[in-house]
Amino acid sequence: MKTISDIGEFGLIAQLRRQLHSRYIGDDCAVLPRSKPGQRLLYTCDPVVEGVHFLPATPARQVGWKAMARNLSDIAAMGGQPRWAVVSLGLRASTPLRYVHDLYAGMTAVARKFGCEIVGGDTTHVRREQFVVIALIGEVERSRLTLRSGAKPGDRIFVTGKLGGARNGKHLRFTPRIREARWLTEHFRIHAMLDISDGLASDLHRLVEASHVGVDIVSRQVPRTGSLRAALTDGEDYELLFTVNARDAGKLRGIFFEIGSVIKKPGVFLDGQPLTEGGYDHFPKRR
Amino acid sequence: MKTISDIGEFGLIAQLRRQLHSRYIGDDCAVLPRSKPGQRLLYTCDPVVEGVHFLPATPARQVGWKAMARNLSDIAAMGGQPRWAVVSLGLRASTPLRYVHDLYAGMTAVARKFGCEIVGGDTTHVRREQFVVIALIGEVERSRLTLRSGAKPGDRIFVTGKLGGARNGKHLRFTPRIREARWLTEHFRIHAMLDISDGLASDLHRLVEASHVGVDIVSRQVPRTGSLRAALTDGEDYELLFTVNARDAGKLRGIFFEIGSVIKKPGVFLDGQPLTEGGYDHFPKRR
Repeated sequence: MKTISDIGEFGLIAQLRRQLHSRYIGDDCAVLPRSKPGQRLLYTCDPVVEGVHFLPATPARQVGWKAMARNLSDIAAMGGQPRWAVVSLGLRASTPLRYVHDLYAGMTAVARKFGCEIVGGDTTHVRREQFVVIALIGEVERSRLTLRSGAKPGDRIFVTGKLGGARNGKHLRFTPRIREARWLTEHFRIHAMLDISDGLASDLHRLVEASHVGVDIVSRQVPRTGSLRAALTDGEDYELLFTVNARDAGKLRGIFFEIGSVIKKPGVFLDGQPLTEGGYDHFPKRR
Repeated sequence: MKTISDIGEFGLIAQLRRQLHSRYIGDDCAVLPRSKPGQRLLYTCDPVVEGVHFLPATPARQVGWKAMARNLSDIAAMGGQPRWAVVSLGLRASTPLRYVHDLYAGMTAVARKFGCEIVGGDTTHVRREQFVVIALIGEVERSRLTLRSGAKPGDRIFVTGKLGGARNGKHLRFTPRIREARWLTEHFRIHAMLDISDGLASDLHRLVEASHVGVDIVSRQVPRTGSLRAALTDGEDYELLFTVNARDAGKLRGIFFEIGSVIKKPGVFLDGQPLTEGGYDHFPKRR
């Protein structure tokens, strides 16, 4: 089985240039056309690390899919259209070449599905944990840009899909909600939106902090694949969490899941009781 | 001494938002103004990994400087002006908070020097090797864009500074050649340009491959801090390597270092003899 060591760094770059059909791979930077008038660029990056976000035994194609889909999900959360990605890989020299190609196949599969292109990147060797870091540029019409900070008391809160169950493998094969976000921002005035990456409980706290409001969630309305606890805290759902006014809410019921309302009183409440974060924190505080 | 674990991920994000004064840190993406007419965006990313590009004992400020300066150097190599960076950090939970702030202080110091702003990022935990991956967007006027592929037979080859000696610490405190690149592309027609990251010998091979030409280097003209061998193969010089026609070359002598010429015959030659790569390869081939 051929490894990266067998062909060296520049052999690998030459292979990737062919695999990705991108003319600037191997040059110092990718060159992009300028953005259109009335638009903003969205810009994000997100790392996945072996032993944290995937296991040594996880198929490379799923690792690539996940690494790219997480970034696409961030663009969705802002109402945007993903466009260009650059990829930094940290790989052991003993890694089979096949692994690298499968990694790119996974990234490319989900990127192309949503009109996004891998335009460059860089690769380094690591001794221990392999990683994939993707940076992504998207475009969004100024009028469709959705931040976390726009939730208003009286808004209704929605999620785009069932929550929980990431640990059953969903975190490796989820579909980023680009199409849902583009449809929502085309037809409705979305006051605030984010993607649920750290768990509903935790991400509701993010919404509340950014918008300086409170939220009251109705537990029996939370759509879930398993227990309520899993739906609140599993994390890595990558569904969208958004708020709209009461009139728009009426039109969205039956399409997405209404789970509660935005209130004036600061804090996150579940059936009126305070709900702690309890979600996934990359650096858990010492208890 | 406070560690990341003491304040948790969101405590860290809140601190960084204050340190960087960037309103979108903590949201899903950074939002950028659109680029100006007649311009292209440049887009690059580059990882630095503990044990490979820096040591556990390397001061964090120098790690941050290096991580950012390498990316700035890629923008310089294309003739561009760096604008926006996003940062992915892989950190152990036991890492002192001070380390993270020093890391950002180093990144910010060199970024601001060249008009570049850190606009977002993400942080994850790792168990073993820490890493810093920066993605960078720059802008370049279409007429000043310099690729590796434009070298022509008859061109003269220049470098912007002395080569070798990266191992004496220069790789941690070098100045990316943004100003030199901007001056060169304003006043001259630069046919091809790249930065010397893998060593002159290796990067000459990159130039030759991209431009489908050959190069003949005159050994006594190679500016160096130590031995010729070090100048050819140490790598991590981050000086610019560029080619211009003979007339422009006359004006550039005495400002930069002329080291040889572009020839028709494919290959890299030193005083007429074939020169192998011998530079730094992140995945050395098995011999």
